[in-house]
Amino acid sequence: MSDYDKLTAHYQTINRFAHAQSMLGWDAAANMPSGGNDARGDAMAELSVHIHRLSTQPQLADWFSGVEQAALTTEQKASLREMKRSWQHATLVPEDLVQAQSVAGSKCEHAWRTQRQENDWVGFEKNWKEVVTLSREEAKIRSEALGLTPYDAMLDKFEPGTSSESLNTLFSDVKTWLPELIEKALDKQKSSNIIMPSGTYPAETQKALGLEVMKLLKFDFDHGRLDQSVHPFCGGVPTDVRITTRYDEQDFVQALMGIVHETGHARYEQGLPKAYAGLPVGEARSMGIHESQSLFFEMQVGRSKPFVSHLSRLSKDAFNAHQDPVFAEENLSQLYTRVEKGFIRVDADELTYPAHVILRYEIERDLINGVIEHTDVPELWDEKMKAALGISTKGNYKNGCMQDIHWTDGAFGYFPSYTLGAMYAAQYKAKMTQTVDIDAAIQSGDLSPIFQWLSDNIWSQASLHTTDELVTRATGEVLNAAHFRKHLEQRYL
Amino acid sequence: MSDYDKLTAHYQTINRFAHAQSMLGWDAAANMPSGGNDARGDAMAELSVHIHRLSTQPQLADWFSGVEQAALTTEQKASLREMKRSWQHATLVPEDLVQAQSVAGSKCEHAWRTQRQENDWVGFEKNWKEVVTLSREEAKIRSEALGLTPYDAMLDKFEPGTSSESLNTLFSDVKTWLPELIEKALDKQKSSNIIMPSGTYPAETQKALGLEVMKLLKFDFDHGRLDQSVHPFCGGVPTDVRITTRYDEQDFVQALMGIVHETGHARYEQGLPKAYAGLPVGEARSMGIHESQSLFFEMQVGRSKPFVSHLSRLSKDAFNAHQDPVFAEENLSQLYTRVEKGFIRVDADELTYPAHVILRYEIERDLINGVIEHTDVPELWDEKMKAALGISTKGNYKNGCMQDIHWTDGAFGYFPSYTLGAMYAAQYKAKMTQTVDIDAAIQSGDLSPIFQWLSDNIWSQASLHTTDELVTRATGEVLNAAHFRKHLEQRYL
Ligand SMILES: [Zn+2]
Ligand SMILES: [Zn+2]
Repeated sequence: MSDYDKLTAHYQTINRFAHAQSMLGWDAAANMPSGGNDARGDAMAELSVHIHRLSTQPQLADWFSGVEQAALTTEQKASLREMKRSWQHATLVPEDLVQAQSVAGSKCEHAWRTQRQENDWVGFEKNWKEVVTLSREEAKIRSEALGLTPYDAMLDKFEPGTSSESLNTLFSDVKTWLPELIEKALDKQKSSNIIMPSGTYPAETQKALGLEVMKLLKFDFDHGRLDQSVHPFCGGVPTDVRITTRYDEQDFVQALMGIVHETGHARYEQGLPKAYAGLPVGEARSMGIHESQSLFFEMQVGRSKPFVSHLSRLSKDAFNAHQDPVFAEENLSQLYTRVEKGFIRVDADELTYPAHVILRYEIERDLINGVIEHTDVPELWDEKMKAALGISTKGNYKNGCMQDIHWTDGAFGYFPSYTLGAMYAAQYKAKMTQTVDIDAAIQSGDLSPIFQWLSDNIWSQASLHTTDELVTRATGEVLNAAHFRKHLEQRYL
Repeated sequence: MSDYDKLTAHYQTINRFAHAQSMLGWDAAANMPSGGNDARGDAMAELSVHIHRLSTQPQLADWFSGVEQAALTTEQKASLREMKRSWQHATLVPEDLVQAQSVAGSKCEHAWRTQRQENDWVGFEKNWKEVVTLSREEAKIRSEALGLTPYDAMLDKFEPGTSSESLNTLFSDVKTWLPELIEKALDKQKSSNIIMPSGTYPAETQKALGLEVMKLLKFDFDHGRLDQSVHPFCGGVPTDVRITTRYDEQDFVQALMGIVHETGHARYEQGLPKAYAGLPVGEARSMGIHESQSLFFEMQVGRSKPFVSHLSRLSKDAFNAHQDPVFAEENLSQLYTRVEKGFIRVDADELTYPAHVILRYEIERDLINGVIEHTDVPELWDEKMKAALGISTKGNYKNGCMQDIHWTDGAFGYFPSYTLGAMYAAQYKAKMTQTVDIDAAIQSGDLSPIFQWLSDNIWSQASLHTTDELVTRATGEVLNAAHFRKHLEQRYL
C-alpha cells in the first residue's frame, strides 16, 4: 500500500468515528433526556480523545513525508493538501493546552448560562479571563507555525486563506454605506402596514408546512430528516443530514425561514461528491462557504418575492387560513424583509446583521492580537453599538457582549463567517443571473436550474480548491462586497 | 495503578464505545432514512472492530494474571469474574472465524428476507449450510476451552451457567403437562364471547396511551424515551433507555402490551446499580433474566385482572370511547389471555409460546452437537409441531423453520432464554406474594412495592452473582418449573 493510500484509509477510519460523534451530538440535542447527559458526555469525550489520537498518530509524519515523492493527480494533490491541513491543525496545539482550554471553556460556558440571565459581568469576567489567555496562547503557537498574525491564525481554523487584511477592506467598505442604507430602509418601511402573526400555530402543522417547503427546495429525504431542538442546526453526515428547528406556537415566521436556512446547509452536505466521501477534501470548504449556501437559500431564494408567494400559498393551505391577511403575499414579504435595530445578533434582520458581525470581528481581532484586554470589551461594545446602530449597551451585558455562546468557550475567529457567507451568496446570485432565470425558476416551482448551478459550482467542488479559487471559478472574481451592497439596495430601497 | 484498577478503567473505556454503538443501532432502527445505511454500516463496523481490538488487547492477559495475587473484596471478585468472562468470550474465537461468520451470517440473513417470503428452502439451505458449519466450528472451540458440550458452550454466551442437562429436565417436565393444559384452555375459551377490535386506532393516540401506561409502570422519562421501529426492542444505555414499538392502526392490542413488555426490560436497565455503571458486573445477568423482567411486567403484571382494569380505563379515556365494548374490562382481559395454536412464535400467546421454544431448543441442540444435519430441520420441525400443537408445516417453510431471524446469522443458543424468562417471572411472583399484596398494589395504581422487590432482588444485583445464586437469593431455590405450571393453570383453567 502506498503512503498516499495509507493516508486515505486512515482518514476514512477517522471519519467513521466522526460519524458516531456527529450522530451522538445530534441525538443529544434532538432526543436525549437530561438524565442521559453524563454518560453521553463521557462517551463523546472518549470519541474525541480517540479521534485526536488517530489524528496525531506518529506514522502520519512518515506517510506525509513518504508521499512527497509520489506522482499524484491534481485531485490527489488536493486531497493530500486537505489531509495535511487537518493533520497540522490536530498536531499544532500541544495536548495539555487543548485539555486546559476544554476545561476552562466548559466551565466558562456552563456558568455563562446563568450569568447571562443575571447580567453578571463580574462573575463572567473571572472565568472568561482564563479562556482568553489560553486562546491567546493557542493563537501564538498557530501564528508562529503558520506565519500569520495571531488572529489570522485563529481565523484559519474556520476560513482557511482569509486574512484580517482582506476582512478589514471588505468590512470597512460595508461600514461606509451600511448605516445610511439602514436609515433609508427604516424610513421607507414607516409607510407600510404589517400585520403581525397573532393566532396559534400548532407545532405539528408548522412541521408539516416545513416539510412541504423542504420538498420545494428538493431536500433529499432519503438522506436526511427534520427534527426539533432548542437551538436549530444542521448535523449528521452527508448521507444522512439531520436538520432541526424550534417551533414557537405563537409565531410561525422564524421557524419557517429557519427551515429554509438549514435546508441550504443540508443540500450542500447532501451534494458533496461521493467520490471523496469520508476524506477531508470531500468536506465543505469552510464555515463561510457553508453559510453562503444556507444564506443563498434564505436570503437570495427564501425572502424573494416569488418564493414568498409559495410560502403564502403553502401556509394558507397548512393552517387552512386562506382569508387570513397575515398569510397574504405582500404581508409575508414585508414580514420577511422587516428592518429593525436591535441588541441581539441572532434576532437581527438581513440588513442590520453585518453591523453585529463587524463589531464582533473588530473586538475579537484586537483581543487576540493583544491590542485590547478582555476587560475593555464591554465599553468597546457600547461604543461600537452606538456608532453602528445608535443603541447603547452600557451596563446591559446580557444584551451586549455576553449575548453569544461563541466566545465563552474560545471560538474566536468564527463570527466573520456569517457575513462572508451573506456576501458570497449575493455574488453567486449576481453571476447565476447571467445564465439562469432565477425568478422564473422559483415561480415555476421547479428550482432545479438554481440547484444545478450551486451543485456544479459549489457542492460538487467540496474542498478541491482553495476558497479564492472556488469563488473565482464560480463567479469570475474573488469576494467582492459590491454584489452584497447591490443586493441589499435592490431589496431595501 | 493496580492491575485491578487498570482492568476497571479499560472496561469503562470499552463501555463508552459500546454506548456509541448502542445509540447508533437504536438510531438506525428508529430514525435513519434508508440512504444513510451504508455509511452507518461502515461506522458501526468500525466501532465493532475497535471494541474487539480493545477487548482482546495483549496487556489484558498480564493484568488478569497480575490481579490474581491481589486481595479483593467480594464485589471486586465478582467484577473481576465478569471482566474475565467478557475477555474470554472475546478472545476464544479466532478473528478469521469471527470474520467468516459475520460474512456468512450477513449473506444468509440478507437473502433470507426475500427467501422467506418466497418459501424458498432450497435457496436458503445453500447459505445456511455455511452458517451452521461455522457455528459448529465456533461451538467446538468454545467447547474445548470451557469443558462443555458444543451446544452448552454456545448457550453460555446468552445464559452463563445454564446447561442442556437442566434445560432437558425443565422442558421435558413442561412437555408432560403443557399439551393437555392447552387443550383444556381452548375448551374453556369456546364458551366466551370476545369482541375483536374493529375501529381505527390512530398511532398518535396509541402512543399517548402507551406513555400513560409507562407512567403507571414508573418508567423513568428522565432516563429514557419511547419511539417507533419496525421490530420493537429495548436499546440505548442504562442512563438513557430507548424502547420502541410498532403501531397497527387497525388494532391496539399488541402495541399496547408490547410497551408493557419493553418497559420491563427498560426498568431493569434503569435499575442497574450506578456503582458498577460501565462495567460487565454492572450489566444485566443474562438474556433469560432480562426476559424475566419484561415477562414479569407483561405476564405477571400486564395481563393480570387488576392491571387490565387500568388498561381498560386508560384506553377508554385515550380513544374517548367509554361505551365501546372492546375496551370493557372483561373483554380486554379475554383479548389478553386468548389461546390459539399457530405457526408463528412471535404471534404466540403465553400458553403455546413454550411449545415453540422447546421445539427450537431440541433442534438447535442436536444440530450444534452434530446429532442431526441442517437438511433434517424441516422434517423435524413438522414432526415436532404436529406433536406439540397438532399442526403440520410440511412444505410450509416460511411459517416453519424459516420464520425466525435468529438462526440465519448463527444465534444458536438464544431461544431457551424466552421460556427461562417466563419461568423465572412466575417463580418471582410466587415468592413476592409472601411479602407483597400484588393485586392490591396494582389495584391501587401505586405499584411501587412490586418494583421495590424487583429492584432489591434483581435490578440492583446486576451480575454480582451467578444466575443460580441470584435466583436462589431472590426466591430460596433455583429455577423450578412448578411455579410456571401453577401460574398457567391458575390463569387458563
Ligand atoms: Zn447557518
Ligand atoms: Zn423481551
